[in-house]
Amino acid sequence: MEITVKTAGESHGKGIIAMAEGFPSGLKFDEDLINEQLFRRQGGYGRGGRMEIESDEVEVLSGFYQGESLGTPIVLRVKNRDWENWEEFMSPEAETSTKREVTLPRPGHADLAGALKHGFRDCRRVLERTSARETAGRVAVGGLSRTLLNQFGVEIASRVTGIGEVSISDDGLEPEKWKDIADKSPVRVTDELDEENLIEEIERAKNDGDSLGGSFEVVASGAPPGLGSYSSPGKKLDARIGAGFMSIPAIKSVEVGLGKGVGSKKGSEVHDEIYHDDETGFYRGSNEAGGIEGGISNGEKIRVTATMKPIPTLGKPLHSVDLTDGEEGKAAKERSDVCAVPAASVVGEAEMANLIAGAFLDKFSGDTVVEVRESFERHLERLEDWYGGD
Amino acid sequence: MEITVKTAGESHGKGIIAMAEGFPSGLKFDEDLINEQLFRRQGGYGRGGRMEIESDEVEVLSGFYQGESLGTPIVLRVKNRDWENWEEFMSPEAETSTKREVTLPRPGHADLAGALKHGFRDCRRVLERTSARETAGRVAVGGLSRTLLNQFGVEIASRVTGIGEVSISDDGLEPEKWKDIADKSPVRVTDELDEENLIEEIERAKNDGDSLGGSFEVVASGAPPGLGSYSSPGKKLDARIGAGFMSIPAIKSVEVGLGKGVGSKKGSEVHDEIYHDDETGFYRGSNEAGGIEGGISNGEKIRVTATMKPIPTLGKPLHSVDLTDGEEGKAAKERSDVCAVPAASVVGEAEMANLIAGAFLDKFSGDTVVEVRESFERHLERLEDWYGGD
Amino acid sequence: MEITVKTAGESHGKGIIAMAEGFPSGLKFDEDLINEQLFRRQGGYGRGGRMEIESDEVEVLSGFYQGESLGTPIVLRVKNRDWENWEEFMSPEAETSTKREVTLPRPGHADLAGALKHGFRDCRRVLERTSARETAGRVAVGGLSRTLLNQFGVEIASRVTGIGEVSISDDGLEPEKWKDIADKSPVRVTDELDEENLIEEIERAKNDGDSLGGSFEVVASGAPPGLGSYSSPGKKLDARIGAGFMSIPAIKSVEVGLGKGVGSKKGSEVHDEIYHDDETGFYRGSNEAGGIEGGISNGEKIRVTATMKPIPTLGKPLHSVDLTDGEEGKAAKERSDVCAVPAASVVGEAEMANLIAGAFLDKFSGDTVVEVRESFERHLERLEDWYGGD
Amino acid sequence: MEITVKTAGESHGKGIIAMAEGFPSGLKFDEDLINEQLFRRQGGYGRGGRMEIESDEVEVLSGFYQGESLGTPIVLRVKNRDWENWEEFMSPEAETSTKREVTLPRPGHADLAGALKHGFRDCRRVLERTSARETAGRVAVGGLSRTLLNQFGVEIASRVTGIGEVSISDDGLEPEKWKDIADKSPVRVTDELDEENLIEEIERAKNDGDSLGGSFEVVASGAPPGLGSYSSPGKKLDARIGAGFMSIPAIKSVEVGLGKGVGSKKGSEVHDEIYHDDETGFYRGSNEAGGIEGGISNGEKIRVTATMKPIPTLGKPLHSVDLTDGEEGKAAKERSDVCAVPAASVVGEAEMANLIAGAFLDKFSGDTVVEVRESFERHLERLEDWYGGD
Repeated sequence: MEITVKTAGESHGKGIIAMAEGFPSGLKFDEDLINEQLFRRQGGYGRGGRMEIESDEVEVLSGFYQGESLGTPIVLRVKNRDWENWEEFMSPEAETSTKREVTLPRPGHADLAGALKHGFRDCRRVLERTSARETAGRVAVGGLSRTLLNQFGVEIASRVTGIGEVSISDDGLEPEKWKDIADKSPVRVTDELDEENLIEEIERAKNDGDSLGGSFEVVASGAPPGLGSYSSPGKKLDARIGAGFMSIPAIKSVEVGLGKGVGSKKGSEVHDEIYHDDETGFYRGSNEAGGIEGGISNGEKIRVTATMKPIPTLGKPLHSVDLTDGEEGKAAKERSDVCAVPAASVVGEAEMANLIAGAFLDKFSGDTVVEVRESFERHLERLEDWYGGD
Repeated sequence: MEITVKTAGESHGKGIIAMAEGFPSGLKFDEDLINEQLFRRQGGYGRGGRMEIESDEVEVLSGFYQGESLGTPIVLRVKNRDWENWEEFMSPEAETSTKREVTLPRPGHADLAGALKHGFRDCRRVLERTSARETAGRVAVGGLSRTLLNQFGVEIASRVTGIGEVSISDDGLEPEKWKDIADKSPVRVTDELDEENLIEEIERAKNDGDSLGGSFEVVASGAPPGLGSYSSPGKKLDARIGAGFMSIPAIKSVEVGLGKGVGSKKGSEVHDEIYHDDETGFYRGSNEAGGIEGGISNGEKIRVTATMKPIPTLGKPLHSVDLTDGEEGKAAKERSDVCAVPAASVVGEAEMANLIAGAFLDKFSGDTVVEVRESFERHLERLEDWYGGD
Repeated sequence: MEITVKTAGESHGKGIIAMAEGFPSGLKFDEDLINEQLFRRQGGYGRGGRMEIESDEVEVLSGFYQGESLGTPIVLRVKNRDWENWEEFMSPEAETSTKREVTLPRPGHADLAGALKHGFRDCRRVLERTSARETAGRVAVGGLSRTLLNQFGVEIASRVTGIGEVSISDDGLEPEKWKDIADKSPVRVTDELDEENLIEEIERAKNDGDSLGGSFEVVASGAPPGLGSYSSPGKKLDARIGAGFMSIPAIKSVEVGLGKGVGSKKGSEVHDEIYHDDETGFYRGSNEAGGIEGGISNGEKIRVTATMKPIPTLGKPLHSVDLTDGEEGKAAKERSDVCAVPAASVVGEAEMANLIAGAFLDKFSGDTVVEVRESFERHLERLEDWYGGD
Repeated sequence: MEITVKTAGESHGKGIIAMAEGFPSGLKFDEDLINEQLFRRQGGYGRGGRMEIESDEVEVLSGFYQGESLGTPIVLRVKNRDWENWEEFMSPEAETSTKREVTLPRPGHADLAGALKHGFRDCRRVLERTSARETAGRVAVGGLSRTLLNQFGVEIASRVTGIGEVSISDDGLEPEKWKDIADKSPVRVTDELDEENLIEEIERAKNDGDSLGGSFEVVASGAPPGLGSYSSPGKKLDARIGAGFMSIPAIKSVEVGLGKGVGSKKGSEVHDEIYHDDETGFYRGSNEAGGIEGGISNGEKIRVTATMKPIPTLGKPLHSVDLTDGEEGKAAKERSDVCAVPAASVVGEAEMANLIAGAFLDKFSGDTVVEVRESFERHLERLEDWYGGD
């Protein structure tokens, strides 16, 4: 059974809700792990004021009992800690006397497109849902996915690979080692000099009243071969990665493995030669495919790179038009981050965790964690015994 | 109502089947248009022998009556013209005395990963479905989508932007003009010098017993604002583009608008300023977003770039291991194209057509083309009268 | 766009959550209407103690702003008013020192089947989700569906048609008049003598330490022809009714129109002859089909009858076996209603409302209530002008 | 992984297509078994002329190779043997000079409702898809489901329980014995006297120019406990049965177990007491629940009864109105069966097979039949060892 993850909730509403279906019964609830992920999502150099309000915390509304999942729909909530300050503008139930209307749509945001879709004059009716705050829900569920995957040896890590015009140097560090280092870096890189350069780049943009995007890579290590399916286009693991990462707000490019780089290389340089030894089983001489061939995992590390556009809200706002009267003006300022790439990389990890967990539970299905484990172990045994067991 | 497109069929089986649900009743069947798309998919410099067998042709198995869709599931078939030569190896019903087993999996193809997933020793059980032949089904349905979209002013075009180490020069030609020029080019470009360079690049790889990938862009012009939805991550138009394009065999990178380029630019350079005049309605000063903001179309051209890896089957095959006995060897040779980027760009058009048609029918829903038209026209009227109609 | 309704939450957990996707923007939030439905669900003669705790109330967690829907996922919550008394036994996050384990599964409940599915020894891990408390979520969303449908002239009503061995007399009362009368009756019937008889039947069962089921009918009036689809089996309106009503806990029979009665009558007696006049348009001489032919609404009243089994928990419990040690014993007593048919009829209304609203929004799709209205009105106009308008 | 079954095709078109996704690889193709099912569907006393044309036969279009499923989408086709006689009226591609228009809609059929939905004047555009011929596709896939289920000891049987005013006597025969007897009976009953009475009833109707419906029961034996899920309403096995059976053309009532009978009995009479012994494991003292409690199988036989309305096309047609000009008249005569209940019971078996196979593959998931078997056997072992294994 696949997992399905649904989120709901407005940025300045009561909170973000995530509903996850498909997790087996018997999964331990690891509150610290989830809250750590939420905390990581809130960090990063270049964030504006909102992040400082207070740390996000997960609350379980359903699906767990006595610290274990029941196999029923899980609902998690991440409350808006600032709700009391927004309640008077954001009542769900009835009109309020004061509102915080946004009538000058921001280029780069969903404001105008959303208003035109619905005939809205107040972009708040759009931006409250299109805000990246929504990703808190995915990150919370990502914590459940990690809890599951970790016990089967699958680990997810990420780091920032570039911000603005500055790209990181390639230090060849293995993804298993990223976490400890990148989590201590305000720009989530693994090299000190890179860190300095990226921070400077952000500072420059900030001083210019401008904003920056960048790129990050997310890697899943330890995923067994056979996740995903080539039976139908929509079931391919890379198709799901394409959808999942592109659905993260502001992402404009998704690459698997060598990604865009495959276009300029020859087949003999790109394809990962196949080997086998009794110890390792099948393995490859390289991993340019990023662990996915034909839409399914091949046993190598699954590598995804995503590129994020700059924050749409600028200190020096861009040209816009008032939706109520057609007057030209400067776009609204709803919030004031300069760069959110480090945070996006954490969201990318959560997305990866949810996608891999879904594919994992599709391949190693079961009503209970016990059944999943049996199915997983039998698969590994079969692979070990490929050329005959003892 | 969205459209759903399912394909089935093996590469050397009886044919490729496509089932499409969600098209309204009253859609004309345009056989020539569909066959033209199938023909375009088969072309391109660098293809091996199979393409020359005979042109693909669409056959309607259900859903049309008297030249018009009934609003019921449409099934199209593209027969395998070479079936008679494969029948003795590919019987669905029973074992045959002769087979064409493939036991040395090809790096870069699904062969090994698929075999490990299912415990297959014969990669033919994998490669028959993972072959790009499957895309004939999507292209056939793409013809239906185009038939629909064309009558509402939405046009889809593509061109190749690079093969191997050669990228095209930017001639600034509008996508509306690509079709006539690119369709006459064996490498689907719009500039003669580019064409020469790309062909040379392919020839070089061929002589080396190697293969090449490359990139192409697909553009949908005329899509109204408001297609797609930001209500849930999976409903975003760019998320669907991410899935749809990544599901095309061999695609490793999908970019919307400026794509990967957004990462190194500033917000003030990337975001498309908003304007309005009575003639045009809302419009933008640029289109770096590629026509999608917040997961929905904003009225500008929808631009997608995809990058394809080189063909996995090489003249000088790579290292592999025999799945039956563990012997090391050279990977199998199943077919012999050197480069399939021009064909992939046509598949990309079909994928775009199906995605946009789906989003279009979601926004302008109706049981019949008449109802879809009414809904579409009312939307345009509302946009025209945004600041008050006459 | 169809609506999808998901529920989550355990019976004695923090509350029941409902997530609804697909409602257009611009739907008014009618809190009183929803709370009235929740209140109706809690009523009925024969309920045990829990219903008296306190009235259920809806809380909006997302999807509404300033009293109007945003077109984003709506999350409603119905809190467990008794949570403080259960918190010590029902912690989601961690094991508690005291628990209320249920190890003797109740015949007629999911207890045993659920335990065998998951390997649970404590049936509480099953019964918390299989409890009919879950339906509070559907009833809450049903309130949204009614708010939508009411403005298009679609009304939903129900009444109980039998409890135990007592069936109601057929008073021929039109469904439009049921509500006012049945809502005042503790057994939700429209005839005083029937009411007396049914109450007596319940009293008898109660005195015997036994429980009762019964049947109810739900009618949707005012639905236009053309809802649902015959294009695929799963899209038929009656197929959805079959699923929706059968998914209400304890329902074992679902009938449309004359239902089971169609089996013993002749075609000439069953099929509803077709007429037309300029005033009414097309109409029928009878409505044995219950408003649905070929899986779509035909413009007549949509009539569904469902039959509910008796409450599984008996005052004099049935034979069971302890799941922990195999000891024979009497089944657990988790709660003590004698009959829940009146409440089930209210749940049936909600289910009908959600199903019809979904089919309505599929046929008359739109991002906004304004667009839905336009689409609806154009359909009616076309039907009016069938034989030529003015 | 669940199976999804899609059908397509018009009654007098080229054929009926069925696409099935979710079957594991390694399933044997049993052509005889499928054709036997198609043959059974065509039988039954009371059928008109069309059934005599020629026997339906299955053709595999995709998904099998060398007699085994590949785990890819399976497409089956049942050709219209009479296509050559219809080709001139039913061209999918273009208008034909002659047509067989149906402008007087038949009460009881989808004709009018479908025409109003789409604005059609020719009911052929509706009836070609709403014809029960569509069920040939489900029966073909049902053959695959049986092939799977049979090897795990699950058997499906059916018999007719009543036609018109005649119900069968209860001979207490076990479902395992129905097949051999009922398959030889033209009315699919297991008692000779019943057979005589039912045939007479059909003859009477035929002589009156009338038609008949009736009821049938379908039983699945050998299904293990734990199929289906109570986690969400739509995943309940009985909800799926409600949808699946109600989607069979002409079915107006679906009952599980005692069905409608549960309404008039007491809890102590209805609920199936729980026992356990070391030989049998858990078992029940009765099976009024029909093998499903709380939406999941409990290990007892799964029993469903469905009731079918009389054939809408009558020898003495009912009142109707011409859709082109409003003239009153007699409904069209498209075909001339008097009673199709025996055939419907075979369709019911196929529906049951598909539903149980889907739930089975959801619980005992795997990419291959080998994996499914392992998962199934481990479940049985766990149940055997419930109170401690050796």
